[in-house]
Amino acid sequence: MRILIINPNSDETMTKAIQETAKAFANNEYSVICKHIPGAPKFIETYEDQTVAAPGMIQLVRENEEDFDGFIIACHCDPNLDTLKEITKKPVVGIGEASMKIASMLGHSFSVVSMTKHSIPNKEALIKKYHLLDALASVRSPDETIKYENDEAKFLATAKTTINEDLAEVIVLGCSGMTGMDKRLEKELGVPVLDGVICALIILTGLIKYNVSTSKVRRYKA
Amino acid sequence: MRILIINPNSDETMTKAIQETAKAFANNEYSVICKHIPGAPKFIETYEDQTVAAPGMIQLVRENEEDFDGFIIACHCDPNLDTLKEITKKPVVGIGEASMKIASMLGHSFSVVSMTKHSIPNKEALIKKYHLLDALASVRSPDETIKYENDEAKFLATAKTTINEDLAEVIVLGCSGMTGMDKRLEKELGVPVLDGVICALIILTGLIKYNVSTSKVRRYKA
Amino acid sequence: MRILIINPNSDETMTKAIQETAKAFANNEYSVICKHIPGAPKFIETYEDQTVAAPGMIQLVRENEEDFDGFIIACHCDPNLDTLKEITKKPVVGIGEASMKIASMLGHSFSVVSMTKHSIPNKEALIKKYHLLDALASVRSPDETIKYENDEAKFLATAKTTINEDLAEVIVLGCSGMTGMDKRLEKELGVPVLDGVICALIILTGLIKYNVSTSKVRRYKA
Amino acid sequence: MRILIINPNSDETMTKAIQETAKAFANNEYSVICKHIPGAPKFIETYEDQTVAAPGMIQLVRENEEDFDGFIIACHCDPNLDTLKEITKKPVVGIGEASMKIASMLGHSFSVVSMTKHSIPNKEALIKKYHLLDALASVRSPDETIKYENDEAKFLATAKTTINEDLAEVIVLGCSGMTGMDKRLEKELGVPVLDGVICALIILTGLIKYNVSTSKVRRYKA
Amino acid sequence: MRILIINPNSDETMTKAIQETAKAFANNEYSVICKHIPGAPKFIETYEDQTVAAPGMIQLVRENEEDFDGFIIACHCDPNLDTLKEITKKPVVGIGEASMKIASMLGHSFSVVSMTKHSIPNKEALIKKYHLLDALASVRSPDETIKYENDEAKFLATAKTTINEDLAEVIVLGCSGMTGMDKRLEKELGVPVLDGVICALIILTGLIKYNVSTSKVRRYKA
Amino acid sequence: MRILIINPNSDETMTKAIQETAKAFANNEYSVICKHIPGAPKFIETYEDQTVAAPGMIQLVRENEEDFDGFIIACHCDPNLDTLKEITKKPVVGIGEASMKIASMLGHSFSVVSMTKHSIPNKEALIKKYHLLDALASVRSPDETIKYENDEAKFLATAKTTINEDLAEVIVLGCSGMTGMDKRLEKELGVPVLDGVICALIILTGLIKYNVSTSKVRRYKA
Repeated sequence: MRILIINPNSDETMTKAIQETAKAFANNEYSVICKHIPGAPKFIETYEDQTVAAPGMIQLVRENEEDFDGFIIACHCDPNLDTLKEITKKPVVGIGEASMKIASMLGHSFSVVSMTKHSIPNKEALIKKYHLLDALASVRSPDETIKYENDEAKFLATAKTTINEDLAEVIVLGCSGMTGMDKRLEKELGVPVLDGVICALIILTGLIKYNVSTSKVRRYKA
Repeated sequence: MRILIINPNSDETMTKAIQETAKAFANNEYSVICKHIPGAPKFIETYEDQTVAAPGMIQLVRENEEDFDGFIIACHCDPNLDTLKEITKKPVVGIGEASMKIASMLGHSFSVVSMTKHSIPNKEALIKKYHLLDALASVRSPDETIKYENDEAKFLATAKTTINEDLAEVIVLGCSGMTGMDKRLEKELGVPVLDGVICALIILTGLIKYNVSTSKVRRYKA
Repeated sequence: MRILIINPNSDETMTKAIQETAKAFANNEYSVICKHIPGAPKFIETYEDQTVAAPGMIQLVRENEEDFDGFIIACHCDPNLDTLKEITKKPVVGIGEASMKIASMLGHSFSVVSMTKHSIPNKEALIKKYHLLDALASVRSPDETIKYENDEAKFLATAKTTINEDLAEVIVLGCSGMTGMDKRLEKELGVPVLDGVICALIILTGLIKYNVSTSKVRRYKA
Repeated sequence: MRILIINPNSDETMTKAIQETAKAFANNEYSVICKHIPGAPKFIETYEDQTVAAPGMIQLVRENEEDFDGFIIACHCDPNLDTLKEITKKPVVGIGEASMKIASMLGHSFSVVSMTKHSIPNKEALIKKYHLLDALASVRSPDETIKYENDEAKFLATAKTTINEDLAEVIVLGCSGMTGMDKRLEKELGVPVLDGVICALIILTGLIKYNVSTSKVRRYKA
Repeated sequence: MRILIINPNSDETMTKAIQETAKAFANNEYSVICKHIPGAPKFIETYEDQTVAAPGMIQLVRENEEDFDGFIIACHCDPNLDTLKEITKKPVVGIGEASMKIASMLGHSFSVVSMTKHSIPNKEALIKKYHLLDALASVRSPDETIKYENDEAKFLATAKTTINEDLAEVIVLGCSGMTGMDKRLEKELGVPVLDGVICALIILTGLIKYNVSTSKVRRYKA
Repeated sequence: MRILIINPNSDETMTKAIQETAKAFANNEYSVICKHIPGAPKFIETYEDQTVAAPGMIQLVRENEEDFDGFIIACHCDPNLDTLKEITKKPVVGIGEASMKIASMLGHSFSVVSMTKHSIPNKEALIKKYHLLDALASVRSPDETIKYENDEAKFLATAKTTINEDLAEVIVLGCSGMTGMDKRLEKELGVPVLDGVICALIILTGLIKYNVSTSKVRRYKA
């Protein structure tokens, strides 16, 4: 089984980190490669970033369709997921959708820890699209008035607030740039902490083994 | 006041028809031009079509931002509306959103007459995005087992079914390719029939006169 | 084109303020008059106030139906809107519905700045009626424990709280008594601030030009 | 305990029928009187009918507030219920709200049998107001193309359709004009059939015994 | 009329308190007995507690079906309510459902005062089941960082917070262990305070008098 | 990795069929055993069936907690899922929840093919619990007026109707008794057909590899 993870931005460091996470989880049971999109933005933050990344993402899927069994979009806003689901017969999984739907199976409600306040409404729009508003405790970004030692401390504090104030029972890391922090945060927080890359691997490898893919009857008909 | 209507596809006939509708409604009170996207698909039907149209749409807005007071996206699936709202400070209105929100003010529930069965779920996803599911009677496409004299007869029959079976009180034309049929259908049906191009002009010219535009505080911050 | 704005209360000062706002926006392109209801309460706050205002509102529409092309109800709780939509074939627009539906096109979510805490649940009930709960950031009234210089300072502080705490992206002025403050607040707040009277004029003049009105097929059949 | 049932229309025959139903259910355990509104329409069908009935309803409550322990509005569209809840400290129950909330406790979903197709959207709007859309199987009116022996046969056929086609498990009689048919229909249908007048008596006598009434803290503050 | 109240736990003190409340409300108009489940947990807090209580509850209903006219489940999480509705033709009412549906008729929104933070999500899941999320102001448990004189003071403070912060207009006591406090709290709070045992008696005695019970057509077919 | 599949009924044939499906999918990558509940009903259809199965299910989990890495409940109504999630620290997956959440990732909407009309409302209640109503095309049971060659032909016809009439894009087999039919139906239908046992294996083996389980912070705290 061969999985291609698409990092929709052009950041090589993030690409490597995602690949590391994926390879560790794959544990040599299947092959997994992460590729970024040359010419895409350094970081996917705006709707325009998503649009700019699209042609490269489409090209990557088309060029690799024969060689891979399924695709993951490794940006938590699931950019161009509908388009990719449509253009290929192979299964495609977004790390946003996978992580939040798995989160909804592990507790009463989940919170998404987001990079910036700017991204909160965009994430809420995505959560609404996935019918998950009733399972959402909150989307929270770090308190910008506080200085933290490092990023991990910042996200830890944010997650703690969602658990105590918003009654979150599961934490979803809201950016693939947070990959690798899940188990350390989980240890501190005492609730499940989900890395979208791993959640997408769980769903995607399952779909491939089961030999099912996107329905092509109407919405995702090419 | 100068309005630019963006026809996201590359069909010149449709572009002309849209412009005709718009000019007739504008009645020389303001200037309105419709431009299509060279190199875009002939018809926007799939998610990939929307993606392929995006760069040309962005370019058109950027090149014309100084010369126009606002923009309309003249495809009823509102392709790339979030992106255009984000990249310009000028107001941007989609004919899908404008027509369905105005429809919700004119009766208990509305139905969208859609070109093909294929587009029904995509339209439903859009309607959900706009929080309008509770005001929706149905999305219907013509019965493909029946032969009709012409397109207009086909859409008329479909609209009649939505009024009688689904209890629709307002009809929304679900494609800018239906422009020009509204008043003839309305006469036959006895309920309001909305052309999205005109609905978008109503909202957009209003926003321009009122000097308000997309909020730039978070979701649509460039 | 001739528009009649109905101020459902009997306050002449408010009637004049509404008329001033409307005339300035109309800019001599059409005629607009605001009339209040003699014998109606000084201020529409309770359900009984709405009921007491009803006969005068009905009479005003009936007496003026021939002379005007459409009607606006200039109270943000849209009193008797269903009744007026029903009794006349001319279009009727409520400033509550118009302002909140336009707000939902300008940002991720909106907040309504309300006069008093007492009116918050009533406003929420109205927002639910219009299917807009998912687009609502909050309804807030001024903090009654703080002394403000003047009303405008009070509403400004309230709006700021909705933007910072509730992540509102658009502000809706929740009472026609706030007419005239919109652009000054907008300048301070940096997000769109909507006066319902102007929003209703945008929709109503558009409907009149488009020659569409309330569907008479069922819910609003006289 | 003394109950006043308000028949918002001016039909004496209906008033008597309601009173008969109520007296039979009261079984001399408490006093119950039904009064109609002189000058109100013969039948409450439109929003204007509701508005026209309002002053008489308010007057009736005010004049009888001291002498009665609670009030019922005996029209299934619950006209002016918010207003009456607001103007009196005594409990007020609408037969629409009472019957549909009790219906939601007796089965998975309920259907309302309505007089005319015209009233379906109005009833749906009411059901949405009471948060009951998820418990609704359907609102149905009799098939107008079929001739029935009598009204009861017509409503029986309509109810059967809702049970078989819409999977309704409980039937709500959607008009106080159907009072008295409940047990005969129930015998034929094999599912609970609810008369709103009796449901309202159940709730209202309970509230009176419990000495609780409408909360006056905000929404229904006079 | 004979009512059997089932206390699903094995706490005799609570059983006596429930019976006292019920007898006082019944006022000798009907017979009411409260029985607990020998071998059930001392307090129903977890899902397992509900499961463990089930066989005893089923047995109690089966053994007493002939002798009683209806049953109440006197635990605010309504344990095994679907099962009991299914196994008997006699009406069954849960104090959770009855109290929260009556609450929704007495004000704009209600809050549930809950014993512990642990039970908040479980209560929210129940409220969603009953379609009442839109009428819910909040579920709140006492602030555990504060020392209170006694339980009643603790619940009073919690209820006050829901009224002031969450804009609750009606208070529902979220545990049958709070029985007897309603009128004292109501006096302090100035809004209706509902004891589920009494609310269930109101509904159940009404259903019995009306001779209606759970629909047996599908969902609750034995 | 060792998985225990709990068949909540006492039917050995079904237990074997489930185990066969599971073993084929596991493909020797992990160990999977299916056990039924001695003394449980032959078929889980009613709420009482679910209740009667509970003690055996709890006992099975408790006795096997040390020896297995996770549990699956192999009945599509997910009986006692909340209870099992609560009593063990190991992950527990229901085939209903797993199959319907995966279905929502493979197409616009899904339909559940159900055994009997009786089970439709119960399934709808479950779907509402999982926040999936917006992704549901329909729950359908076979047309009882038609004679079919065999069960598979019956479910095939039912699934075809959901695709054509209800616009379902994905089919979920609504009973573990249908295990083994998925790929044959899929070939005929041309859309993904999901067997809940396999979907649950996908999720559960993923959770085990990822070393995450049910959040124990509140709702599922033992």
